[in-house]
Amino acid sequence: MTRPDGKLEEEKVFKDPVHRYIHVRDELIWELIGTKEFQRLRRIRQLGTTYVTFHGAEHTRFNHSLGVYEIMRRMVDILERKGVWDADERLVCLASALLHDVGHGPFSHSFEKVFHMDHEQWTRRIITGDTEINEVLKKMGDDFPNKVADVIAKTYDNKLLVSLISSQIDADRMDYLLRDAFYTGVSYGQFDMERILRVMRPEEDQAVFKHSGMHAVEDYIMSRYQMYWQVYFHPVTRSAEVILCKILNRAKELLEQGYDFQITPGHFMSMFNGQVTLNDYLKLDESIILYYFQAWEDEKDAILSDLCQRFMHRRLFKYVECNPSKQMLIWPELQELFKKIGLNPDYYLVIDSSSDLPYDFYRPGEKDERLPIHLLMPNGELRELSRESDVVEAISGKKRTDHKLYFPKDLLTDHTTFREEKQRILSLLLNQEG
Amino acid sequence: MTRPDGKLEEEKVFKDPVHRYIHVRDELIWELIGTKEFQRLRRIRQLGTTYVTFHGAEHTRFNHSLGVYEIMRRMVDILERKGVWDADERLVCLASALLHDVGHGPFSHSFEKVFHMDHEQWTRRIITGDTEINEVLKKMGDDFPNKVADVIAKTYDNKLLVSLISSQIDADRMDYLLRDAFYTGVSYGQFDMERILRVMRPEEDQAVFKHSGMHAVEDYIMSRYQMYWQVYFHPVTRSAEVILCKILNRAKELLEQGYDFQITPGHFMSMFNGQVTLNDYLKLDESIILYYFQAWEDEKDAILSDLCQRFMHRRLFKYVECNPSKQMLIWPELQELFKKIGLNPDYYLVIDSSSDLPYDFYRPGEKDERLPIHLLMPNGELRELSRESDVVEAISGKKRTDHKLYFPKDLLTDHTTFREEKQRILSLLLNQEG
Amino acid sequence: MTRPDGKLEEEKVFKDPVHRYIHVRDELIWELIGTKEFQRLRRIRQLGTTYVTFHGAEHTRFNHSLGVYEIMRRMVDILERKGVWDADERLVCLASALLHDVGHGPFSHSFEKVFHMDHEQWTRRIITGDTEINEVLKKMGDDFPNKVADVIAKTYDNKLLVSLISSQIDADRMDYLLRDAFYTGVSYGQFDMERILRVMRPEEDQAVFKHSGMHAVEDYIMSRYQMYWQVYFHPVTRSAEVILCKILNRAKELLEQGYDFQITPGHFMSMFNGQVTLNDYLKLDESIILYYFQAWEDEKDAILSDLCQRFMHRRLFKYVECNPSKQMLIWPELQELFKKIGLNPDYYLVIDSSSDLPYDFYRPGEKDERLPIHLLMPNGELRELSRESDVVEAISGKKRTDHKLYFPKDLLTDHTTFREEKQRILSLLLNQEG
Amino acid sequence: MTRPDGKLEEEKVFKDPVHRYIHVRDELIWELIGTKEFQRLRRIRQLGTTYVTFHGAEHTRFNHSLGVYEIMRRMVDILERKGVWDADERLVCLASALLHDVGHGPFSHSFEKVFHMDHEQWTRRIITGDTEINEVLKKMGDDFPNKVADVIAKTYDNKLLVSLISSQIDADRMDYLLRDAFYTGVSYGQFDMERILRVMRPEEDQAVFKHSGMHAVEDYIMSRYQMYWQVYFHPVTRSAEVILCKILNRAKELLEQGYDFQITPGHFMSMFNGQVTLNDYLKLDESIILYYFQAWEDEKDAILSDLCQRFMHRRLFKYVECNPSKQMLIWPELQELFKKIGLNPDYYLVIDSSSDLPYDFYRPGEKDERLPIHLLMPNGELRELSRESDVVEAISGKKRTDHKLYFPKDLLTDHTTFREEKQRILSLLLNQEG
Repeated sequence: MTRPDGKLEEEKVFKDPVHRYIHVRDELIWELIGTKEFQRLRRIRQLGTTYVTFHGAEHTRFNHSLGVYEIMRRMVDILERKGVWDADERLVCLASALLHDVGHGPFSHSFEKVFHMDHEQWTRRIITGDTEINEVLKKMGDDFPNKVADVIAKTYDNKLLVSLISSQIDADRMDYLLRDAFYTGVSYGQFDMERILRVMRPEEDQAVFKHSGMHAVEDYIMSRYQMYWQVYFHPVTRSAEVILCKILNRAKELLEQGYDFQITPGHFMSMFNGQVTLNDYLKLDESIILYYFQAWEDEKDAILSDLCQRFMHRRLFKYVECNPSKQMLIWPELQELFKKIGLNPDYYLVIDSSSDLPYDFYRPGEKDERLPIHLLMPNGELRELSRESDVVEAISGKKRTDHKLYFPKDLLTDHTTFREEKQRILSLLLNQEG
Repeated sequence: MTRPDGKLEEEKVFKDPVHRYIHVRDELIWELIGTKEFQRLRRIRQLGTTYVTFHGAEHTRFNHSLGVYEIMRRMVDILERKGVWDADERLVCLASALLHDVGHGPFSHSFEKVFHMDHEQWTRRIITGDTEINEVLKKMGDDFPNKVADVIAKTYDNKLLVSLISSQIDADRMDYLLRDAFYTGVSYGQFDMERILRVMRPEEDQAVFKHSGMHAVEDYIMSRYQMYWQVYFHPVTRSAEVILCKILNRAKELLEQGYDFQITPGHFMSMFNGQVTLNDYLKLDESIILYYFQAWEDEKDAILSDLCQRFMHRRLFKYVECNPSKQMLIWPELQELFKKIGLNPDYYLVIDSSSDLPYDFYRPGEKDERLPIHLLMPNGELRELSRESDVVEAISGKKRTDHKLYFPKDLLTDHTTFREEKQRILSLLLNQEG
Repeated sequence: MTRPDGKLEEEKVFKDPVHRYIHVRDELIWELIGTKEFQRLRRIRQLGTTYVTFHGAEHTRFNHSLGVYEIMRRMVDILERKGVWDADERLVCLASALLHDVGHGPFSHSFEKVFHMDHEQWTRRIITGDTEINEVLKKMGDDFPNKVADVIAKTYDNKLLVSLISSQIDADRMDYLLRDAFYTGVSYGQFDMERILRVMRPEEDQAVFKHSGMHAVEDYIMSRYQMYWQVYFHPVTRSAEVILCKILNRAKELLEQGYDFQITPGHFMSMFNGQVTLNDYLKLDESIILYYFQAWEDEKDAILSDLCQRFMHRRLFKYVECNPSKQMLIWPELQELFKKIGLNPDYYLVIDSSSDLPYDFYRPGEKDERLPIHLLMPNGELRELSRESDVVEAISGKKRTDHKLYFPKDLLTDHTTFREEKQRILSLLLNQEG
Repeated sequence: MTRPDGKLEEEKVFKDPVHRYIHVRDELIWELIGTKEFQRLRRIRQLGTTYVTFHGAEHTRFNHSLGVYEIMRRMVDILERKGVWDADERLVCLASALLHDVGHGPFSHSFEKVFHMDHEQWTRRIITGDTEINEVLKKMGDDFPNKVADVIAKTYDNKLLVSLISSQIDADRMDYLLRDAFYTGVSYGQFDMERILRVMRPEEDQAVFKHSGMHAVEDYIMSRYQMYWQVYFHPVTRSAEVILCKILNRAKELLEQGYDFQITPGHFMSMFNGQVTLNDYLKLDESIILYYFQAWEDEKDAILSDLCQRFMHRRLFKYVECNPSKQMLIWPELQELFKKIGLNPDYYLVIDSSSDLPYDFYRPGEKDERLPIHLLMPNGELRELSRESDVVEAISGKKRTDHKLYFPKDLLTDHTTFREEKQRILSLLLNQEG
């Protein structure tokens, strides 16, 4: 089936609604897609709980990973045509693009928050550990898995290559913006990727963009900005996330208290005690999580049962804007009132904050500093994007934070008991907003 | 929030990538969407195992059900504007459209085959049984759930209304063609729905179409034809389905044999013994199935374990065309050879047949007769579509059947044992094809 | 700017709404686009009078010619990657694709009918005559223009190359279907070109298509079929064409009669007397035609003036279906009646016939025989498309003809004079239809 | 055909590639579309000379006018459903939307510059003068044409209605952004119009937008910003416009000098002497202009002939950025040099400036003040858009101006004569840029 150069006899294609076709020409890539660790990504949605808000967003990380690979393949083709690409790096680059998200677990965002895990670290463990992926990668040389892991860790010495996968304008971001816009159905998220790829010029440690393509890059940044606030940080999505976190918290707490589960949470054990093996981790996917949540709907513990029912049947918490300074003043009273009416505030009164920095340039000394996007001017100089673009300048470096306070409004409108307290709670919550 | 006429104070919208927006104006519809039985559809994919072939096709029946509702809403709007619609029927119609698929279980096609279930019957049980959906419907009158169930059963006395939901050109089919084309990314499946709706004219027992819109209807029939063979009956999708059926068969057999499961297949028990309650049924969704399949990867039974691994990691059976007449001749030898090399032919040698009748007109006396599509000619007469359209005539009433023989090719190419038998098997399989 | 190999230093791109971008990499192509004969195509609409029916269809032959070039470029890229392409032929092929329509004049269809011209012959004259295009082509060798002209004439010895530009599935047809569908806004005309290109396999004298891509080819044929009847032969478009022909006829007749034009029809002179030079021909474009038509609105000749006003202000003739056998019977009476009420039947009573053969296979001995489309079967054999496809078989070789009778209905509904005759005319016309 | 309420018996539809279908339900609108003054818009391109840069942009003002009407029809439907619309105003509104551009002439921008004309004034003259449009409008009452003219003039007393057609977010702008993006093929220009219409709330003197839809409005403003700089002010488009203006200037000058034209510029006479009648004006369209330009290619006057050839064959001027302060210093020398080498600097050395104010809020006392866009906050207050949106704030009130210097570079690179002068000119031009 394959030729000595590692090329497939015949190109394989996947029909893809975003890029039309995904083209696979290398045996390595074909085999990686076939590994069980990669196939597992089919059981992990790309956008976590976003589907509760945008019903179209049911696509998985498998879907997205193929897309990132395809964009990278096109980038590499362009760079090769320009003669600036070292052929040896080609497969490192393509494999890294394909595998960059392989360490994601189900509802990553929530799991990372509750269990202090880091999906990027898991990606590297899967690449270098005892897995089918590792076995396939090693066919390219014993050191090959490490190279790929280094790219993911951004410690690889070819910085240009790293920047193609992970920078403020990379294959990952380009795919997810286009893809998430496609599946949610929103009209933001569109930009002229073909033009961006064409004006991309490789420099030593990153790709820069010809000045004539600035507006396409500007448009990409604006798409990102719009998608964050319109889709990724949608308050209803976050409500489902808040409940999910609280379920995990509650299950952990119950286990620690020696609670007697009807269905023993086997898959969670190592997670709760912080000793997760690679094998444990790879067994986690969304169907496992949902299996437990369905089972826990019938648990005796009222909190666990209620939260699971809320998650499964989309009985979400409502929210009010949360003004941190005002909120401090009412917090003690609110907590008291919640306890009084029988709702544990640890689980039923939750502040969630989201913040985004749509674009930033280098600020020396700050941690988490980001590599800025550079334009290649007609005279050969490089200029940082926000110096040329008013609109990028307007949002550059401005961290926008949004605080919301989530609570089960449905439990506060039933006035058969604690009528006064409930009215007081609602009045406190709604007033602090304005 | 709602007004006396049952209209919502403010229209609710869902962003939908296919119809742009789904508009909900009636309290009834809004509440039905919020029921747990309807929310459960989020955990059941629209196209079963199609995602193994078209990775974009990860959308669920929730997604599709909203789409059918939206098309119906537009149809009803048009009919109301023409003044031919009895306002009382409006909500019967919209609710039936929304709920027409609510009885679908996970991987329905396979489950119906193995357990002789009928999703339409479950739909009616959910509508009339002890469910949240039934409770919401009854707010419209005690008889309302029965009306909706009758529409689903096609026994409702307003035949026009029935035909809008279930005929050879109905809201259901129109949505799934457009939607499945969108998510798979294929270019077939497109047709001018807006025009079809505009040329639709209500007659006593069905909707007919103005002759001037014939080409749009023709195009719809061709889309259906193309989608069946390009997407719905794709041989790789069927390979996953074959394996899925065999897993269910094996688990049932093992249970009957008193096999000691490591993980007791609780959710399957009532199914295996044929006593499924409504509550049991509603607990089934794809995450439950996948939970068991993952667990069964580690079962001692080699067949169950192997099949589950194949399904989960996409190690599918290969196939050859199957010529029924030739196949009869080699079947006994094949069975023997499979047994000899240690493969149970009941699980590893499977014929799968698919057939489609893209369009048909009425043939008296046949069972399963279909209501034909009629064109309204300029002179006021009705003519059956295939009399006017050459291309529809070409495929009309022609049942096309495709037989494929599935087998685990990977197990036949390892030649450390039974080299000769394996070669003989492969030669038999490949020769009978030509 | 250019390199010794004739490649441009930097690729040029045109933004194109159908193919996203048109890529130009060869100096030759860039210079051809810049010639005045090619730029002239901007003043000739692609679809003649179709804009009176589909207002979006205002695109020109310039637009389409770039599109055909781009498809050919992609085809050649694919063939080169397969290693079957003689590099010398590349530019012959691209230039032929770009220039294949360069001989089109304004409203070609009507001009060819009235003046017995042939746009393909003009294309060859422009390529080989004293033009900027010829000058540019000759830079590639003295014989180069002839090669390109031979491709257009289908006499070139590389039959594969000829078939890419002119066969039943070629770059020209693929572009115009996609493009005309895009600009008119109809949903037909879509097909998966990318897939067709990928399954294309070069054979000695034509390209064939892998059997696995049959449905994409089938879909293309159906698009063609739908576009012909929905767009290209639309009866309203043909009404404008009928009037256009009659204007040209009338002007010619008047000139022959020595009529004294207020504005001498300078650009038409050589056409009327059949001595058109290359220079005369190249001056003709749609603005010239429309200039005269506007001027002739004020001519004393009532017929010329009326017809020009009709064309310019879209006061078109109405039509009835025309049944040739019935029509013979009423023709003499109709002619008499038209004369009686003062309408010259030569100009006001017109039969127009359109016919299409959407796909045909080779029928020995017939003139105008068409090269059939062949599928490459898994066993290496070739099979003609209609033997494998039911739907193509259904329309294959079936010439469908449509006759319509056009007349100025507005002049027949004014009943201040000749009331009886007009009623008789309308009754004859409407009755012969049924 | 029509009913007493002025509604058509059967709705008419136009297929439109941007809005899918244009729906006409009123006899008035149907008749207006049929007038010769409206049909004339088919001969006037929407984007003037933009087609020389974006070959897809060949659509006309007819195309756009239907689109504006359709958006307005949808707006009015929404407002009527909300019960805030006076039914009497409906047709005023729809007619104004349809006719708002009817006074445009060919290449309006250039004609207005050279002949100091104002297309809005012509629109009003056409509506109130002796035209078919006026005749049709008067059927609705003697005062009806004046009402429509007042809307165009923004003096109509229903300010809400005026704002729907002419404000910073109106039916006109929404259509042209979507339409011009569609035809050029650029990916900017997309925004979620359906959402904008849905969040629109009528206030006394303008429409405001619910705060929840802010991002859709923001996206619209950004589209506008991007389209201006990427499409409308493209420097190549402006080069063609510069030449067009110079042709008109030259012809005027020659006529004033008593130059003996081979083809008398009949259609231009009244324009050159400033006495344009309505009838003269309505005869002008792009085909007329192009007829003269083709004829003038052969005029003896070298400047007129050269400029016309440039325009017709797309031999455009090149450009350099123009720094006004530096340019002052070199201007006298440049002028001298041009004269020396025989090029009249009045025609061959041209500065063109474009500037845009993508969004502005009200600044008291300034002329041309613009009505700001207001958001309707959850608490019922109105807030001006740029106070809520960072990105709009970034571009709000900032007039960006771009100066370019155009010249015939091709004439400066031929070094058979005046080698030194030409080199000096090029060096001056290119140096002043940096």
